[in-house]
Amino acid sequence: MALIVQKYGGSSVADAEKIANVARRVADSAAGNQVVVVVSAMGKTTDGLVDLARQITPSPDPREMDMLLATGEQITTALLAMALQRLGAKARSFTGPQAGLRTNSAHTTARITRIEPWRVRQALDAGEVAVVAGFQGLSEEDEIATLGRGGSDLTGVALAAALKADVCEIYTDVDGVYTADPNIVPDAKKLDRVSYDEMLEMASLGAKVLQSRSVEFAKKWGVPVHVRSSFKRDAGTLVTREERGMEEVVVTGVTHERNQAKISILRVPDRPGIAATVFGAIAEANIVVDMIVQNISRDGYTDMSFTVPRADFQRAVTALQGVSAKVGAQGVLSDERVAKVSIVGVGMRSHSGVASRMFATLAREGINIQMISTSEIAVSCVIEDKYAELAVRALHDTFEVGRARASAG
Amino acid sequence: MALIVQKYGGSSVADAEKIANVARRVADSAAGNQVVVVVSAMGKTTDGLVDLARQITPSPDPREMDMLLATGEQITTALLAMALQRLGAKARSFTGPQAGLRTNSAHTTARITRIEPWRVRQALDAGEVAVVAGFQGLSEEDEIATLGRGGSDLTGVALAAALKADVCEIYTDVDGVYTADPNIVPDAKKLDRVSYDEMLEMASLGAKVLQSRSVEFAKKWGVPVHVRSSFKRDAGTLVTREERGMEEVVVTGVTHERNQAKISILRVPDRPGIAATVFGAIAEANIVVDMIVQNISRDGYTDMSFTVPRADFQRAVTALQGVSAKVGAQGVLSDERVAKVSIVGVGMRSHSGVASRMFATLAREGINIQMISTSEIAVSCVIEDKYAELAVRALHDTFEVGRARASAG
Repeated sequence: MALIVQKYGGSSVADAEKIANVARRVADSAAGNQVVVVVSAMGKTTDGLVDLARQITPSPDPREMDMLLATGEQITTALLAMALQRLGAKARSFTGPQAGLRTNSAHTTARITRIEPWRVRQALDAGEVAVVAGFQGLSEEDEIATLGRGGSDLTGVALAAALKADVCEIYTDVDGVYTADPNIVPDAKKLDRVSYDEMLEMASLGAKVLQSRSVEFAKKWGVPVHVRSSFKRDAGTLVTREERGMEEVVVTGVTHERNQAKISILRVPDRPGIAATVFGAIAEANIVVDMIVQNISRDGYTDMSFTVPRADFQRAVTALQGVSAKVGAQGVLSDERVAKVSIVGVGMRSHSGVASRMFATLAREGINIQMISTSEIAVSCVIEDKYAELAVRALHDTFEVGRARASAG
Repeated sequence: MALIVQKYGGSSVADAEKIANVARRVADSAAGNQVVVVVSAMGKTTDGLVDLARQITPSPDPREMDMLLATGEQITTALLAMALQRLGAKARSFTGPQAGLRTNSAHTTARITRIEPWRVRQALDAGEVAVVAGFQGLSEEDEIATLGRGGSDLTGVALAAALKADVCEIYTDVDGVYTADPNIVPDAKKLDRVSYDEMLEMASLGAKVLQSRSVEFAKKWGVPVHVRSSFKRDAGTLVTREERGMEEVVVTGVTHERNQAKISILRVPDRPGIAATVFGAIAEANIVVDMIVQNISRDGYTDMSFTVPRADFQRAVTALQGVSAKVGAQGVLSDERVAKVSIVGVGMRSHSGVASRMFATLAREGINIQMISTSEIAVSCVIEDKYAELAVRALHDTFEVGRARASAG
């Protein structure tokens, strides 16, 4: 008998009929297994609650916001428990606090500090399906706190870790992780397996399937995560520790992120503390910087470039212009129409020449590379936005992505 | 500095604008006072949740139903706390469990067992308005439990008792307790004061303002309850312990309850245990019986009559027919078009002839009395439904209801 944690997102539980469908699927798994189900709020419920709060005040208190938002998942748990009982299954719902998720006090973006899932265990021991509200826990001050974006996935992975579950299944509207976006690359293939590190690079580089936060947690605690479709019965992609054979594949996936903007601050005096001043100003404006590149300095001056989401572009430029004058830089250059393309694969560690093959591929297509950044298992290039799809297709072809892994799967 | 508990019902907090209005009113009270606010779910929220549950299953588990319904009040608390903060007031929301309401385990109809409102006190001591979710508490098994009908009023009264508040203000869509229904009796007057016992008779006899459950609790703990309008600033009706002078008024109010049905079981053998058998069958069908009348027996047989809400009429008759045969009664007689009119007043204790004046008044109007029932401070008659309004007007006139009390007020 396996212990399985399943997580269903908001679109999978958007109405009573969809909840009944999920219940059928859970009941099937519960025949012969112990099952914990983590659920999100129904469909657009959270948006509706946020909208209500905005009607009341432009700047809702985070503690009260959590009190408000946590109701969304609670509603789903009760309804799913009812739906399971209707099918003859034993089931019991739990809020995040009841399930023993303890968090720090950073309301609306709380972090899990520990899990004491004794009530969940009790339910499982009694032969019940435990239905747990995702996205929420109890803070050190015994307040309801929510985990922020991707919080329900994280709840699933964290509960799986605490309960030593055999697998955490993440049900979503895609059927797994692909070698590239199938909308762009028609012969993109679903990956049977992908390592935590590869998934981390893919998550942070634009594959929307799974938040990097959950992957990091899964990696740390060794939780196998199975990303699969809510609507199909086929196996999806298993995110797991690195396995023999994975290194034989050089590139596991090609990812891209559009809607990026690039900003450069020119001829900055190259003194200690300058980078902190520059990025301190951006952080103060609550803008998340993605890629940062600084080249060697010449004559005591250097150029710094970075990318931000296009939505934050104007605010970032405004913040930067103040800093530019303050630190005695020459000025700010910006381009709000760039994209980032990346190749990812644990095999890069043991294969040389991967980056240069990437650059050559882009050159062959007449695509100019504006910025380059590398990690141990990924190479990313910033290019003009309009070339994004062309670049992804060309790279997918060059590295024959998915062909080797598919045969290994 | 007074400590005030205020309770606002669902229609007072039906949307963001109404919540902002309530916030202004609470903020005014909070200037110079400590204030605890108890709120219901917004408008039709609870109906919506019940409907969702019914889409899932015809017989939702009570424990899961409570998990579901408790979210309604929680949403209101968070929004009202935000609205208060927007006005510059300090405020903090609490679920029923957080506010320390402990209940028994009768899900969907739980009873309050004790209150440990230390978090509420802490908030008050910190100069905050405590906004508490009505209708809910934490059961002995640490489950969320709801209090059933009138549960939010009860939460207000119970918190006022536990905190030794100076008053519990119940805000509603009427501006107080009237000597009769103003829609029927144009010169009905608002009562400035009414005793707990009178209010109890009026609550159970059809005045919809306050549930008898809350009045009983208020009486037991001596909590003054002020019933007043959410929309006007005028004082409403204070429900309080009996005071000197109240007895001088014979009749404080005339109440009526329509949509009643009368059922008689004829020539029942007059043996011990027969009444238990008859009403046991009705209770098993989950029907609440209101008035019960049994006259002296003749030749070892007696007739029993009782009233039920008209909606339960058919089910009650069906349940009775089985019993009738079993106990050897002659049969069942029923009338689904009756109403009950009552006169209520603590002065009846010391004034004789009140009942006969009532009967004479009804006779003068040509209204036949079908059943009579009396308590220490009330007389009730069951009459043909179509005469209900006429009877109320005539009785209000005969006893000059409101005239003496209005001058005393």
